Amino acid sequence: MASEIIETTPSGENSVGIVETQFATLFEPPHELVTSGGKTLGPITVAYETYGELSPEKDNAIFICHALTGDAHAAGIHSDEDTKPGWWDDFVGPGKGLDTDRHFVICANVLGGCQGTTGPSSIDPVTGERYCLSFPVVTVGDIVEVHYALARHLGVEKLLAAVGGSLGGFQVLEWAARYPDSINAAVVLASAANLSAQGIAFNTVGRRAILADPNFHDGKYHEHAEGPRYGLSLARMLAHITYLSEDSIEQKFGRRLQHSDKLAYDLLRETEFQIESYLHYQGKRFVERFDANSYLYLTKAMDYFHLEDKYGSIAKAFRNTDIRFLVVSYSTDWLFPTSQSREIVGALIETGKHVTCTEYDAPFGHDSFLIDLEPLSRLLHPFLEQAQHLRSSGEKTTSRNKK
Amino acid sequence: MASEIIETTPSGENSVGIVETQFATLFEPPHELVTSGGKTLGPITVAYETYGELSPEKDNAIFICHALTGDAHAAGIHSDEDTKPGWWDDFVGPGKGLDTDRHFVICANVLGGCQGTTGPSSIDPVTGERYCLSFPVVTVGDIVEVHYALARHLGVEKLLAAVGGSLGGFQVLEWAARYPDSINAAVVLASAANLSAQGIAFNTVGRRAILADPNFHDGKYHEHAEGPRYGLSLARMLAHITYLSEDSIEQKFGRRLQHSDKLAYDLLRETEFQIESYLHYQGKRFVERFDANSYLYLTKAMDYFHLEDKYGSIAKAFRNTDIRFLVVSYSTDWLFPTSQSREIVGALIETGKHVTCTEYDAPFGHDSFLIDLEPLSRLLHPFLEQAQHLRSSGEKTTSRNKK
Repeated sequence: MASEIIETTPSGENSVGIVETQFATLFEPPHELVTSGGKTLGPITVAYETYGELSPEKDNAIFICHALTGDAHAAGIHSDEDTKPGWWDDFVGPGKGLDTDRHFVICANVLGGCQGTTGPSSIDPVTGERYCLSFPVVTVGDIVEVHYALARHLGVEKLLAAVGGSLGGFQVLEWAARYPDSINAAVVLASAANLSAQGIAFNTVGRRAILADPNFHDGKYHEHAEGPRYGLSLARMLAHITYLSEDSIEQKFGRRLQHSDKLAYDLLRETEFQIESYLHYQGKRFVERFDANSYLYLTKAMDYFHLEDKYGSIAKAFRNTDIRFLVVSYSTDWLFPTSQSREIVGALIETGKHVTCTEYDAPFGHDSFLIDLEPLSRLLHPFLEQAQHLRSSGEKTTSRNKK
Repeated sequence: MASEIIETTPSGENSVGIVETQFATLFEPPHELVTSGGKTLGPITVAYETYGELSPEKDNAIFICHALTGDAHAAGIHSDEDTKPGWWDDFVGPGKGLDTDRHFVICANVLGGCQGTTGPSSIDPVTGERYCLSFPVVTVGDIVEVHYALARHLGVEKLLAAVGGSLGGFQVLEWAARYPDSINAAVVLASAANLSAQGIAFNTVGRRAILADPNFHDGKYHEHAEGPRYGLSLARMLAHITYLSEDSIEQKFGRRLQHSDKLAYDLLRETEFQIESYLHYQGKRFVERFDANSYLYLTKAMDYFHLEDKYGSIAKAFRNTDIRFLVVSYSTDWLFPTSQSREIVGALIETGKHVTCTEYDAPFGHDSFLIDLEPLSRLLHPFLEQAQHLRSSGEKTTSRNKK
């Protein structure tokens, strides 16, 4: 995910309750994944969670594609003592935006990540040591390939929907382009058909911070007492600024001081303003839960994503599909501005595809897709209902045609 | 300055020609500067340049206040062999925006800087060693105090105008508030009455990059073989993104690759996209010309600037002045957006002050004030003419009143 939800409701009556992360082993030799860069990778462990029940018709599955630093734990808690529910718990559960009373919801950690799915910190079975930088560069396409395999492994031939924000939206778009018959509806939140040059620029600086940290040790920091925590926290501090709107920073922190009502005139007091203290805290927390190598790989996957380069045009990427698209942007998101959503919508309309789009007037910047969930839920319920209805009738049509 | 002008015309016929940086020693004990933080500092060396001639009436002086990483060398060249004219050479010279045929133009390196004026890398006369982090924290007010002393040292009691962009604009505003009778006209470009919380956030990350660099050595890196060049270049790379508009990055670099037309699938190729290569180059060049401690001090001075905190309100800051203001913003500047200029203009209008304002539709983001100089020049000529005319008639009135 772009960043943690700052406040989240504790899991209560409308929670999916206690959930367990599960693991699947896919792409076992000799059926390894061939990455976009031409390397082979396998076996691949995938960490995933599911919420709700798969219908006998297997027609109610929704796949959540998480953003840059998310994980498989989208909803619920891991034990009775667990006080921190999954990252999208406000959106996934009984009666929520993704309604687990009706849908079978799957969320998997991405390939290259560090929360259970095979990534650079995993053990390479060939060497018995961590991959580190010998892990192949992966693309959004490679990530989707693993998601697709997992869905089939779970018995789902065709998803009711794939849903994702930011890098998760990239995955949804790529999935729709790559396997047009495997999804009924695609929900793309705060995303784009490619990362902007400005986005690449910010990622470049974040990666530089990690690579220049003397504790990076060419990616083999696990063998040392300390990893590149300065670099990784710096990358996170920077990225975090891009997830917030200028207005939300202004309103939440403004120029308020952290410890005093007087300026310190002390250059080494790094957390004088509240916004400074907040960013340092975010950086510090991030280092505790994320792997620096994964950050390098996944930001690179974002940089590489470009539907037009790959398929000739956005329209061509979706020429073979009757997927129904929902494209959502947020007015204060300057990292993935509405203009980028419009580009997708324009291409879909031009080629006569089904597309619904909206821009929410939310104040939280790019993070809005993690926070501003009420209006999205209201929109999503009828959208998914229609997709499911059309799916049923569509299948009948297909059956008739087959006769 | 925010960043270098990427291309600049070589000094030719309309150049001020060969110029020499001069030095003045001010605030000699026992008349030291007392900084905003309550420390004393002196003597203070000021590096400055002047272009054009001071009129016998001493009524044609214009003071240029430079931005974060600028210097005293605004125009001309330092020798016949010098191929790199001053940072605002397109704007300062015969017939240019600041017309040296008519005006006596002064530009001085700021207090705390590293281009000749006393700063953290200067020798502390008490210890015989560099100040480094024992240098007092300086504010925009302290910087202006030194500028003001220099103007008087040069025989100028009242400036025709003070002109500056970004941090330079802060100085112009502070000067106008602090010494309202010492300026006729104030020209504030791409600036604000305070740095935004988002601006503080970016500065925080930049400072963190320097402070976390193991070669920072508590600011005493001069005693070591290598300084915090990774940290300083990282800070610059990040800041540089904020000086450009998203559109200008997109148009100038887009997703073009630097060395190939194929993706490298190589995580360690840090300059794969042109935008990456450009940022790395900017970072590297910056380290060659700028001091890390100065970067810490001057960004902190930016963070601390807040007219309202200091004077009660923007309107109160200017209650005692009849200075004529020109406030200019640029449509694609997201670091100092037009809304911040409007705040200044609104306060000035409310209190019946003379203010002219405009937003230029320039594509270059915050850097526009260094690049988009033609329309600004056309606006500035009549504005300065009027200020000079009113000054003359104002002086006559004063004379009459005295009779």
